[in-house]
Amino acid sequence: MRVVDIIEAKKQGREHTKEEIDFLINSLMNGTAADYQISAWLMAVYFQGMTDDETAYLTDAMVRSGEVIDLGELAGSVIDKHSTGGVGDKVTITLIPLLAACGVPVAKLSGKGLGHTGGTIDKLESIPGFHTGLSIPDMIAQVKKIGVAIGAQTQKLTPADGKLYALRDVTATVDSRPLIASSVVSKKIASGADNIILDVKYGSGAFMKTPEDAVKLSEIMVKIGKKLNKNITAVITSMDEPLGRAVGNSVEIIEAIEFLKGNITEGDIAELTYDFAALSLVQLGKYPDTESAKKFVKEVISSGNALEKFRELIITQGGDAGVIDDYTKFPPVKYAYELKSDRDGYVQHIDALKIAYGCKLLGAGREKKTDDIDYGVGVFINKKTGEAVKAGETLCIIYSNDEKKTQSALKYCKEAFTLSDTKPVVHDLIYEIIK
Amino acid sequence: MRVVDIIEAKKQGREHTKEEIDFLINSLMNGTAADYQISAWLMAVYFQGMTDDETAYLTDAMVRSGEVIDLGELAGSVIDKHSTGGVGDKVTITLIPLLAACGVPVAKLSGKGLGHTGGTIDKLESIPGFHTGLSIPDMIAQVKKIGVAIGAQTQKLTPADGKLYALRDVTATVDSRPLIASSVVSKKIASGADNIILDVKYGSGAFMKTPEDAVKLSEIMVKIGKKLNKNITAVITSMDEPLGRAVGNSVEIIEAIEFLKGNITEGDIAELTYDFAALSLVQLGKYPDTESAKKFVKEVISSGNALEKFRELIITQGGDAGVIDDYTKFPPVKYAYELKSDRDGYVQHIDALKIAYGCKLLGAGREKKTDDIDYGVGVFINKKTGEAVKAGETLCIIYSNDEKKTQSALKYCKEAFTLSDTKPVVHDLIYEIIK
Repeated sequence: MRVVDIIEAKKQGREHTKEEIDFLINSLMNGTAADYQISAWLMAVYFQGMTDDETAYLTDAMVRSGEVIDLGELAGSVIDKHSTGGVGDKVTITLIPLLAACGVPVAKLSGKGLGHTGGTIDKLESIPGFHTGLSIPDMIAQVKKIGVAIGAQTQKLTPADGKLYALRDVTATVDSRPLIASSVVSKKIASGADNIILDVKYGSGAFMKTPEDAVKLSEIMVKIGKKLNKNITAVITSMDEPLGRAVGNSVEIIEAIEFLKGNITEGDIAELTYDFAALSLVQLGKYPDTESAKKFVKEVISSGNALEKFRELIITQGGDAGVIDDYTKFPPVKYAYELKSDRDGYVQHIDALKIAYGCKLLGAGREKKTDDIDYGVGVFINKKTGEAVKAGETLCIIYSNDEKKTQSALKYCKEAFTLSDTKPVVHDLIYEIIK
Repeated sequence: MRVVDIIEAKKQGREHTKEEIDFLINSLMNGTAADYQISAWLMAVYFQGMTDDETAYLTDAMVRSGEVIDLGELAGSVIDKHSTGGVGDKVTITLIPLLAACGVPVAKLSGKGLGHTGGTIDKLESIPGFHTGLSIPDMIAQVKKIGVAIGAQTQKLTPADGKLYALRDVTATVDSRPLIASSVVSKKIASGADNIILDVKYGSGAFMKTPEDAVKLSEIMVKIGKKLNKNITAVITSMDEPLGRAVGNSVEIIEAIEFLKGNITEGDIAELTYDFAALSLVQLGKYPDTESAKKFVKEVISSGNALEKFRELIITQGGDAGVIDDYTKFPPVKYAYELKSDRDGYVQHIDALKIAYGCKLLGAGREKKTDDIDYGVGVFINKKTGEAVKAGETLCIIYSNDEKKTQSALKYCKEAFTLSDTKPVVHDLIYEIIK
């Protein structure tokens, strides 16, 4: 078998066998396939696609390229939740302690992202002292002890995906559905959970631009999950607008805490968290339907148990739980600039990507892995889409540590808001659930 | 400008600007574009193609990536002839001294090929002492003095093509028409001649499998020639059968000498050489039509002038011209095995590729650039397609230096011959001429 013949086969549109995919990934890992051959194959995959079988073989080969976490007896009862990524998406942070408080063990591995803001791990590390560098045995022990743990993904899991992704990023081959699907699902499978909930975003702020694309991607992921004996539910949700009101790092943790305190019971963050929690309980067979599950979930919040579980999580992972009661314990910022509305009306639309660019300019994200994140900076949206606003009222607040950057971010935030005379129709967040 | 954006553009099917192509080739040459990016772009080109403008930009950028030979006042009158390569193709060797004897200066650069047999340069080097390592000034001086010179292509010409071809070879992106066209034409342009005759082969023994493919490739090459102010004529010829009777290295030189001696006046080699010579004379305005030009060409052969020009060429480039009168001065072989026919009938077809495989097994070609060529080995075809044969008559002779290899080559040669009861129709060699 030769790598060039595998490239030729895909170029011609032929279906790879399991042996061919294994050979290719082994050759990638042991260096006998050159990067320039892999990237030519990736481009051929972009044009010719892959069948569900091929995608499952690739997923499986990437899982076997590195360590696989053995959750032992926990595996069947644990939930792992993953989002394809969106602006202001802190639902993983609200969901994890909530599920644990509902009696569902959660073992979550998350990446330190490159992006406009930090990833879930970065956001949590804005809590002073919070550390996520857990070893796998420590993580499992913590889940057994307090029902929840969150750790930073290590390079030991799916290294083949790491290599492929690095190549895709610089060869314009990121946007291929089978490649996206195998990348996401391989990481989840290597993380050890048998039950996986995927939040697949579509819209201007997401990777999939249309709901149809998100449906197709989700169908592939659910199918390859089945082929590899994993129970995957994909929830397709809109990402045209920022999720919630806070975009940044510590500002997003504060919004999550407000939710866990029971102070936010309506709107996108509350709805999505209720829905994902209820879906998880139903998937695990703990409740017969999402309605009854959702009722229980809300009780767990109002009882204070979800907030206390978050406190326990913070303390166990070395963080200062005092942030829950005193937000000034988060990293401070020098400036808080209020963007005022110059007219009466309704917020018609908020462009998620523009808010995200603003946050990036402020220092909320990183471009290179070695960049530092400025945890305190970000944007808080006072007026969400559909809300009425009067001239002079604050549309959003920009938290910054640099006056010049504030002005640049302000420009993007201004452009992000579209105001109108009539109240717009606000669409459902969840487009479809595929399982 | 970023390389990844250029890949993305081609992936989306957009047309590159001249600036983009120049940037890409410059980045390839100075190392700022990684090989894995170039190979992804090559695969995108395979799928999306390139317009004639893009192909001309690429050709031009590859020409400018290295040295360009300046033939000075000769450029307009010199002919350069190139074949896309075929089994037993020694027409360059017959044509070069013939044209020079017709008063047309020839400056020919040729590659040392990887293939089943050697390239034109290797075949000539089977003449003891013949050397092709001419410097460009030496070459020009020799053309001025005796009207003809043939040198081995150096890496100083079109190095970008060299890099691209090396990548295409291992990433299954060789068979893209704009990439083939730009590769061929860039080398010809860098060689300095303004008048170029291309022999574009099609058939089982050629790269283009159908005449339609060869026509499309030729049209591109003629068009980009025009865009770059070169006068290109493409002659589309069949390559289903070996050309002539000899396949190898010194055996092909012997066949060329026989032609120049006037001993071969019919059949494919004679026809093609007459045609190419006549086309060249017409292209240069020396004759009004190919009929009158062909008449002159035949006179130049029968007068002995073409043979004497070849003798002069051999002597000038250090070779032993004694080979012309005494073929035993060529490198000897130990065995000459005759493959006999087991039936009466007609040769219906001879598979060029199988004869080529046989020659490769005998050692007539090389797989790696460092491999040695066994100059004397090869196959001589006694019975060509359309010829009658009786049981016991020799179909072909295998020249070999190794008994074991002889047996393996014999197997391929046996398979190459198809015999039938009725005389087959032999098609015209030239399918179309495009200029």
